[in-house]
Amino acid sequence: MKTNLLCWALFATITSLLTAEEPARFDRSVKVTQNFEAAIPHPAQQKAVAEKLAALEKKTGRKPNILWLVVDDMGYGDPGCYGGGEVIGAATPNIDRLAVGGLKLTSCYSQQTCTPTRAAILTGRLPVRTGLTRPILAGDKVTKNPWEGEVSLATLLSEAGYYTLLTGKWHIGEGKGMRPHDVGFDEFLGYYPAQKEISQRVDERRYPGLVLDPDRMKMFEGVGPDDHLTHGFKGGKTEQLAQIKSTEDMGKADQVLADFTIAQIKKLAQGDKPFFIEHCFMKVHCDNFRNPDLGVLSESKYAYKEAVAEVDLHVDEIVKALDEAGVLENTFVFFTSDNGPQMDAWPDSGYTPFRGAKGTTFEGGVRVPGIAYWKGMIKPGRTSNDVFDLMDLFGTAMTLAGVAIDKLPDDRYYDFIDQTSFLLEDEGKSNREAVYFWWGTELMAIRMKEYKGHVKVVLPQSTHMHIDLALVHDVGLAPWIFNLHLDPKEEMTVGHRRDPWLASVLGKLKAHAATMKKYPPKNIGL
Amino acid sequence: MKTNLLCWALFATITSLLTAEEPARFDRSVKVTQNFEAAIPHPAQQKAVAEKLAALEKKTGRKPNILWLVVDDMGYGDPGCYGGGEVIGAATPNIDRLAVGGLKLTSCYSQQTCTPTRAAILTGRLPVRTGLTRPILAGDKVTKNPWEGEVSLATLLSEAGYYTLLTGKWHIGEGKGMRPHDVGFDEFLGYYPAQKEISQRVDERRYPGLVLDPDRMKMFEGVGPDDHLTHGFKGGKTEQLAQIKSTEDMGKADQVLADFTIAQIKKLAQGDKPFFIEHCFMKVHCDNFRNPDLGVLSESKYAYKEAVAEVDLHVDEIVKALDEAGVLENTFVFFTSDNGPQMDAWPDSGYTPFRGAKGTTFEGGVRVPGIAYWKGMIKPGRTSNDVFDLMDLFGTAMTLAGVAIDKLPDDRYYDFIDQTSFLLEDEGKSNREAVYFWWGTELMAIRMKEYKGHVKVVLPQSTHMHIDLALVHDVGLAPWIFNLHLDPKEEMTVGHRRDPWLASVLGKLKAHAATMKKYPPKNIGL
Repeated sequence: MKTNLLCWALFATITSLLTAEEPARFDRSVKVTQNFEAAIPHPAQQKAVAEKLAALEKKTGRKPNILWLVVDDMGYGDPGCYGGGEVIGAATPNIDRLAVGGLKLTSCYSQQTCTPTRAAILTGRLPVRTGLTRPILAGDKVTKNPWEGEVSLATLLSEAGYYTLLTGKWHIGEGKGMRPHDVGFDEFLGYYPAQKEISQRVDERRYPGLVLDPDRMKMFEGVGPDDHLTHGFKGGKTEQLAQIKSTEDMGKADQVLADFTIAQIKKLAQGDKPFFIEHCFMKVHCDNFRNPDLGVLSESKYAYKEAVAEVDLHVDEIVKALDEAGVLENTFVFFTSDNGPQMDAWPDSGYTPFRGAKGTTFEGGVRVPGIAYWKGMIKPGRTSNDVFDLMDLFGTAMTLAGVAIDKLPDDRYYDFIDQTSFLLEDEGKSNREAVYFWWGTELMAIRMKEYKGHVKVVLPQSTHMHIDLALVHDVGLAPWIFNLHLDPKEEMTVGHRRDPWLASVLGKLKAHAATMKKYPPKNIGL
Repeated sequence: MKTNLLCWALFATITSLLTAEEPARFDRSVKVTQNFEAAIPHPAQQKAVAEKLAALEKKTGRKPNILWLVVDDMGYGDPGCYGGGEVIGAATPNIDRLAVGGLKLTSCYSQQTCTPTRAAILTGRLPVRTGLTRPILAGDKVTKNPWEGEVSLATLLSEAGYYTLLTGKWHIGEGKGMRPHDVGFDEFLGYYPAQKEISQRVDERRYPGLVLDPDRMKMFEGVGPDDHLTHGFKGGKTEQLAQIKSTEDMGKADQVLADFTIAQIKKLAQGDKPFFIEHCFMKVHCDNFRNPDLGVLSESKYAYKEAVAEVDLHVDEIVKALDEAGVLENTFVFFTSDNGPQMDAWPDSGYTPFRGAKGTTFEGGVRVPGIAYWKGMIKPGRTSNDVFDLMDLFGTAMTLAGVAIDKLPDDRYYDFIDQTSFLLEDEGKSNREAVYFWWGTELMAIRMKEYKGHVKVVLPQSTHMHIDLALVHDVGLAPWIFNLHLDPKEEMTVGHRRDPWLASVLGKLKAHAATMKKYPPKNIGL
């Protein structure tokens, strides 16, 4: 395999930097099953949380609901509670309140773009393993449906008695067999692609060459993507509802989606099943358009800021709906973003205090807001800088739903960690030792303790274009290792002489790469 | 004057960019007296706060105490409440608690280095006007004492019946006539220079060429600076107390200073005078040394982080002393830093999410933490992004102490704004329209609303050396104007076509430069 060969060539170089006799390595994680990522055991905290969950289940008579709120392309620094908010012209009082009422994670990691993150959290596996490394568009000739044979979280939770719903943006395949209701969700209401892909058909100010040219538009429509609101049911029919016919329609889309999720929460709370809802905002991915039904929401007034402020309003409406439906104390809520800000679209883009942006594996691309909120179950006012990979939502949801680990096949590698005890115990510590960063099929970097080690980097060739005008580079003689305590902006490496971190961090990366050899990734022809 | 000629040549260029007929300009400030910076009037808020202060005075029978806590070189991003803290390896629970209990300013500005900031807050005037644009060291041949004829805040408050004390670092002249107790303070206990200037005499690991060479050391000692703790009284004697004889002594210095301030608070609270204490930490200026009397304080364990954590402890001790002395509700507390992080000393330096560092007029150099705390007088949990210049502490202190504005001479320009009503009213708005940034005698930039306009910039020639390896540049054809809402890192200018901001922001800068023509700055031969 090309990927593996590259990996091994790379590691041959890296290991030559280490002494012949390898030093003792720092690594607290313990491997229990060969095909699962090793976790740091915290027996006391795990026991305490298991008891806490059992007590709640005894009280409510059912498993807890799970609600994920996934914003598109929101930067780490956008919410007020992460240093942004009114400082950058768009206050986020409701997101901030969620953080104050729960656990604010400051080392929460996504993949470097949208599709890989969304695939990873639903499969519990790195995108390089499933092939879902970038959006599958209608024009792509994939040789294989990447979802085929994958066991999605929606499937697992459905089988465990949950009603599973995805509202909003999908972007992990829109062909038959790849849609939310094909891969485990009982219901889907939303859009397959990102905002910009939809709105460019109607936005003649930004895309006159397309909108005003009938021939080009015809060609464009021939390859999609779909600009209808789609409503589908597992094993049932799929309907195309309202089409986005104007930028005003696009501006209103998130209100339609929020209203739907709210109605579903109220309905499902009356039912006899727990629910799993993944609510995926269309905003704040470019191109953002103000919701014409709302007044001016932000001090800045720019489209991006208006979008942030609107998302903040919907977060409040949705959390309020849980409360009004009487299920706030029986619902695990997780708020996050799928990657760093897409600076290429500036000024229609967010803020990260870190280096890089969406499309890079520097902190700016992958460090995202992550707030766990659960009234009565997560102590208010918690903050943790322990590492959390959004994939860990997969394992955590399994535990909350009581899905046994042996429901997962053993012929493939699973990258998630069950973080239930980290998130729910008052002083909980992370069960994850390291986070790995890929860019397509390239292994790029690792975060371990306060260290970030890069073996490849994406460097922009402009001050803001990190996706569309950037280059992938090998690093120099030695990997770039940054101490994120001393250098959160990844500007000054600690140097190749600083063992034990070189040995420990790169040893961990090497062990990770070895899982690719044992469990070769899928090639879907993307 | 050279400075003025340069300014005017520059503005001739700038104004040529504006239309012949100047557009109406945005500016809410109103000039009342010719030689005072124009302020934005907020009559209702000013009236409400005047009543609140009168009520407190009636209750306590005296004017309120004033306590400034000035950290040396702490970055905007260092405290947890500004996005740092445990995220960067040094939690700051006590500073964070101060912010939660009071008003956190997110657009609080210092000068770009230490001496100018310290001079500005005590004179209410820009350093370019007084000549205090950089440290006066013993070897400097200044032709004129810059303090001569200046009216310091310490003098004004002493005359108004306050006991005035400066504890800690001074750095605004150590010759006779320039020391704290020469320029208005009743008492001084501290050091004249910064930590590094003191500790380099004893730190043979970092400065072997000095410490281990008797001849060089002799030359060095001939020009100072003084490495004794100095205790001086207005019109009285000046004593040299303990000398810093080791890096351990240096590590303990801030404990000695904090203990002194605490003892003074307890003593002064029993007296019949209100007090003004400016407590200036030696830390976290490089070179930082752990306090050997304390255990490891930070997760990071690096010297800088240990210093941040120690400052956080002292902040708590000092605020607790106010409480224990029964004066917490009658003391205005302001916590800040004198400039951005000194990246040149990395890794012995702080964190700013912004561009630039100490020594530049980008946000990284001049945007600092600013927390106003006053139990019972400032509503807990306030945050404001309205602009505040640390010089405004001068005018605010005058108002708190009831010093009439006509105590100030009218033959010179005053740059401070009285911000009492902004800081004390529950929803108070800033009385300042713009902040101006100088670098020595060069006018560099302006902040107005969310805009930052640069006519000159300091650009580093290395990734971290902003003082010792950087160049001052004129900007290109058009001034660089950044929208700090959309671009807090000052990377993408909004362009020269975007009126009215070009006209308004640069019009304001031009009006500011004109004050230099009418009130020529002092030349002290530095």
